[in-house]
Amino acid sequence: MDTIRDMIRTNPIPPRFAVGEELARCIEACVECAAVCTACANACLNEEGVAALRDCIRTDLDCADVCAATAAVLTRARDADAALRALLEACATSCARCAEECDQHAGHHEHCRICAEACRRCRRACEDLLAVLSA
Amino acid sequence: MDTIRDMIRTNPIPPRFAVGEELARCIEACVECAAVCTACANACLNEEGVAALRDCIRTDLDCADVCAATAAVLTRARDADAALRALLEACATSCARCAEECDQHAGHHEHCRICAEACRRCRRACEDLLAVLSA
Amino acid sequence: MDTIRDMIRTNPIPPRFAVGEELARCIEACVECAAVCTACANACLNEEGVAALRDCIRTDLDCADVCAATAAVLTRARDADAALRALLEACATSCARCAEECDQHAGHHEHCRICAEACRRCRRACEDLLAVLSA
Amino acid sequence: MDTIRDMIRTNPIPPRFAVGEELARCIEACVECAAVCTACANACLNEEGVAALRDCIRTDLDCADVCAATAAVLTRARDADAALRALLEACATSCARCAEECDQHAGHHEHCRICAEACRRCRRACEDLLAVLSA
Repeated sequence: MDTIRDMIRTNPIPPRFAVGEELARCIEACVECAAVCTACANACLNEEGVAALRDCIRTDLDCADVCAATAAVLTRARDADAALRALLEACATSCARCAEECDQHAGHHEHCRICAEACRRCRRACEDLLAVLSA
Repeated sequence: MDTIRDMIRTNPIPPRFAVGEELARCIEACVECAAVCTACANACLNEEGVAALRDCIRTDLDCADVCAATAAVLTRARDADAALRALLEACATSCARCAEECDQHAGHHEHCRICAEACRRCRRACEDLLAVLSA
Repeated sequence: MDTIRDMIRTNPIPPRFAVGEELARCIEACVECAAVCTACANACLNEEGVAALRDCIRTDLDCADVCAATAAVLTRARDADAALRALLEACATSCARCAEECDQHAGHHEHCRICAEACRRCRRACEDLLAVLSA
Repeated sequence: MDTIRDMIRTNPIPPRFAVGEELARCIEACVECAAVCTACANACLNEEGVAALRDCIRTDLDCADVCAATAAVLTRARDADAALRALLEACATSCARCAEECDQHAGHHEHCRICAEACRRCRRACEDLLAVLSA
């Protein structure tokens, strides 16, 4: 998604915190994680053993919603304020929980393995950005 | 939105934390706040003095996204886990920031006054639910 | 949700098509239908017979996403242009399909009965607004 | 976003209409267009001449919402039914309108130029998928 970086570059008023690379990586990770979690929820729903995957579907849907909101808020970020930090923490926590849940099914379902990885990437990206914001 | 309460009532597996009233009120407040913030962003964009309302538009859009995600996650809530708490805190913080920003324009723009009130209601609902979850 | 009407009233540049009542009713119906479909998807997921409710969950999630997008687009509507009409038609179609699907389970699951009604209200509100726009 | 293709590949019940490549390309285009339109709305808001970019911001926000909903619905698609077709038509129409609006500012604002291109790609992807569904 090079276009996301192009859009960050062409924003006439970049965020006051100078975090080009971490910001771009976090937005990309959130966008990807939202799409992957949406797809994992659907793949789980299609599995024969759907009844055992209820928590995974719920966690996927939650993570998708939180990542999508975080991507949008990051895209508009100006300051490293309390609202941005709290959302990044919520997103990291949501990704951690979804990765943990999907890991339990990763041996049987490749979509859960891929989803757990996307969640871990997104969690790390949120934590890396939080670290830069606090520096 | 009595239907939201009807849906909570007819959920075959209600959340393990027994918080019917606080939960319903928080979902309703998030749904309302998301709709109102979306409308306030648009009304601000339509104002002659739009250039002075940039931060307000941005804050409205952020708050709308966070409230919409929170409403959806709350609707699926089973446990008072770390992800739910972190999101409720992020939502309360986002609403607090949006209320503060809209308050600055409330004297001139009725949509900002109404929006600030919706944000305060939603913030309170998130904090009330957090208090019950921690009890 | 009287606040939605207040926000429409305080928008400094109302839509060029003069459809206060139909517009407000359609936004409210979309907001409600999105919330109810999100809750119905979750309630279906919690049912013992979840395997038989896969199509219903999928349809609920689709309808929730389309109604949420339609509510936001309607809130910003200025002209009765092709994009607005196409989206209203897509929303009405999505609501019709979800009502049909939920009707099949309405005898066993009250959440499906309530959801089917919300979908029918939203479909009608979209069609009523389309009729006014075309007048 | 190779992960989107991986998720489509690992879905245990692929859509009954056999359109792997067109489907993956359309989901990717919608996800990208939603992210780019969100960023373009924000970049426009940051421009000195924001007052002249109101329609562009509104159109960007509309297109972002419609593309995000379409990406999610496509991810769950099973059949080439009326609801799917209507949404693809709405998405193509919304992208066409946003491309047209952004083209007017593409000479002055690079973000509008990039956004117009993303909208055109997404419109084509929707139309290509519609063509396959109708075949």
